[in-house]
Amino acid sequence: MSWTLTPDLIPNLARGAAVLGTGGGGDPYIGGLLAQQALATHGPVTVVSLAELPEDAVVLTVAMMGAPTVMVEKLPSLDEVIAPVQALGTYLGRPVTHVACAEVGGVNSTIPVAAAAALGLPLVDADGMGRAFPELQMVLPTLYGVTASPLAFADEKGNVGVLQTVDNTWTERIARVAAVEMGCSIMISGFAMSGGTAREALVPDSLSTCLRIGSGIEQARAEKSDAVVRTVELLGGREFFAGKVVDVERGTTSGFARGRARIENVSSTLTLSFQNEHLMAECDGDVLVTTPDLIIVLDHDSGEPITTEGLRYGQRVRVIAAPSDPRWHSADALAMVGPGYFGYDIPSHRFDGTLDSVAGETAAHETAAVLA
Amino acid sequence: MSWTLTPDLIPNLARGAAVLGTGGGGDPYIGGLLAQQALATHGPVTVVSLAELPEDAVVLTVAMMGAPTVMVEKLPSLDEVIAPVQALGTYLGRPVTHVACAEVGGVNSTIPVAAAAALGLPLVDADGMGRAFPELQMVLPTLYGVTASPLAFADEKGNVGVLQTVDNTWTERIARVAAVEMGCSIMISGFAMSGGTAREALVPDSLSTCLRIGSGIEQARAEKSDAVVRTVELLGGREFFAGKVVDVERGTTSGFARGRARIENVSSTLTLSFQNEHLMAECDGDVLVTTPDLIIVLDHDSGEPITTEGLRYGQRVRVIAAPSDPRWHSADALAMVGPGYFGYDIPSHRFDGTLDSVAGETAAHETAAVLA
Repeated sequence: MSWTLTPDLIPNLARGAAVLGTGGGGDPYIGGLLAQQALATHGPVTVVSLAELPEDAVVLTVAMMGAPTVMVEKLPSLDEVIAPVQALGTYLGRPVTHVACAEVGGVNSTIPVAAAAALGLPLVDADGMGRAFPELQMVLPTLYGVTASPLAFADEKGNVGVLQTVDNTWTERIARVAAVEMGCSIMISGFAMSGGTAREALVPDSLSTCLRIGSGIEQARAEKSDAVVRTVELLGGREFFAGKVVDVERGTTSGFARGRARIENVSSTLTLSFQNEHLMAECDGDVLVTTPDLIIVLDHDSGEPITTEGLRYGQRVRVIAAPSDPRWHSADALAMVGPGYFGYDIPSHRFDGTLDSVAGETAAHETAAVLA
Repeated sequence: MSWTLTPDLIPNLARGAAVLGTGGGGDPYIGGLLAQQALATHGPVTVVSLAELPEDAVVLTVAMMGAPTVMVEKLPSLDEVIAPVQALGTYLGRPVTHVACAEVGGVNSTIPVAAAAALGLPLVDADGMGRAFPELQMVLPTLYGVTASPLAFADEKGNVGVLQTVDNTWTERIARVAAVEMGCSIMISGFAMSGGTAREALVPDSLSTCLRIGSGIEQARAEKSDAVVRTVELLGGREFFAGKVVDVERGTTSGFARGRARIENVSSTLTLSFQNEHLMAECDGDVLVTTPDLIIVLDHDSGEPITTEGLRYGQRVRVIAAPSDPRWHSADALAMVGPGYFGYDIPSHRFDGTLDSVAGETAAHETAAVLA
């Protein structure tokens, strides 16, 4: 069922996306402003479900690439947002019919809204991850053989490029160095998919899910009930730590915001390691949860999501874990986004405390089932 | 007058190009092998003068971009050489009619020969610099408003990209970081020009000049006369130092081979500073010659050119200076390739010991005359 996205829905959409963004994706408020401005200027956007996509659709993802620490200070213009879509449409020689989110996460859930509004195209109620990840090849479509390239990129100065690479990791590598050189954030568009491929490879109903989470937080607050508990219920997750932020190390290196945050309470210390998104939560030296499951930091009282670049000394926060799309636990997926990829030599720790097998035997079995 | 480039001419072409390359452009022998192989496989190449270019020609430059220290160990295949030309032709939507050299300098004078042979296209007897410079915007066409982009690039793995940038410096910046990421050398093609523009903006008869210099060295040796003296005569330059290489510092950083060489004789020490190409020659602390004029290191006895990455302790060499194309001494040109651009706060020292005015007043006057 299609529905209409109007400016009033943006704050909750962005709030929910910041929850699923597991710390990444940039400030939801700032991303929301851009989407609201685009909707006010160009009119509301029609959001269509994956089921409604025609087979011959040309679906492109649109995203901002770079360090969220920079993105929040260098929000793109609408011209910049649509530039890579237009460049890619010209390169493909076919009109683009639908815009989709590569990930859910602050800015990257609202930028596609702005692009869809400015281009007058429908937006797909889906995304490529069901969460946010730091590198562009880290989307489920990669596991289904969808190529990121041709991928177009654009900056605020008017520079545009199109890449045609041998695999999605090379798209990431070349686009990343270009992003760093172009000022640490660029707009990208790629992963051209037919309707059928999008149905198979994307995570369904992402924008609806974001809205439900965002509205849940708002309602809980209005009802004076616990917004964090409401979010945990909606995600099917669990709360595993509460405390005060006592230290944040953060650097913007190689085009990412990398760092570590320490959160303390009377008995324990939680350490969160992140690369744009939270990757690993350790409590007093024990690993509790890792990528690909979701690690989410919420304000202790309001339940508002806090992004990695928004973490500050003294914040009182609660930390929750939630399951990722089950396809992220296949062996191929874990090789791409599991702890090992980010340099942690440990198995993936699921949100519920169970482990994925290191060698991926169980996981390999799951891949076969999932991708069959 | 058009002429035919056959494999037997390549050694002298490459030798002469290495002389004009002022230390840059990579090993002429290695570049020559690729051209000879292409000519043997695809047949000889027709070389046409600028005067013969039809007005509606589509002339593209073809070059290798990166650090010569890497280029010599990672010579491209013919597929890689033609990949950016093909990508650019597709992007432009017009058939490419002619290939030209962006610079003269070892590899970058012979790679376009290989491209022309493999593509079955004529090669223009001209180049964009009349020497070699380290960055891609440093060509006379930039001074005539020719845009480097659309610029296509390709690596040996099969990755291809097309850039459309706001100016030629941005083409350099983005292509350079891509080159570094892609293994420190890539093939590029760009600077699309009509016949009329090429006639105006390129340095005429470059390949003929290279051949004349290369043959001059060969003949002088056969006649047991002095090959260095012969080269100085052909270039209208002067020999200003002879000695032994006693120290070479060299690093491959940011996609360039940067460094310094010291050459001593009984009375003095000459220091050459280079970034791919020689930029400045100082003798006992006094600057003698700088970019844009040519600083060329030749083997003491054989007169063979020695590239910056070929400099070794103990070599006995002679160092000569020669005038660049006069357009390089205009104010705009000096801002782009003069000593100041490379971080040396001194006026351009011409090959004959005279100075360009620092502020470029004289030079500005010359620009008006040259570009009128």
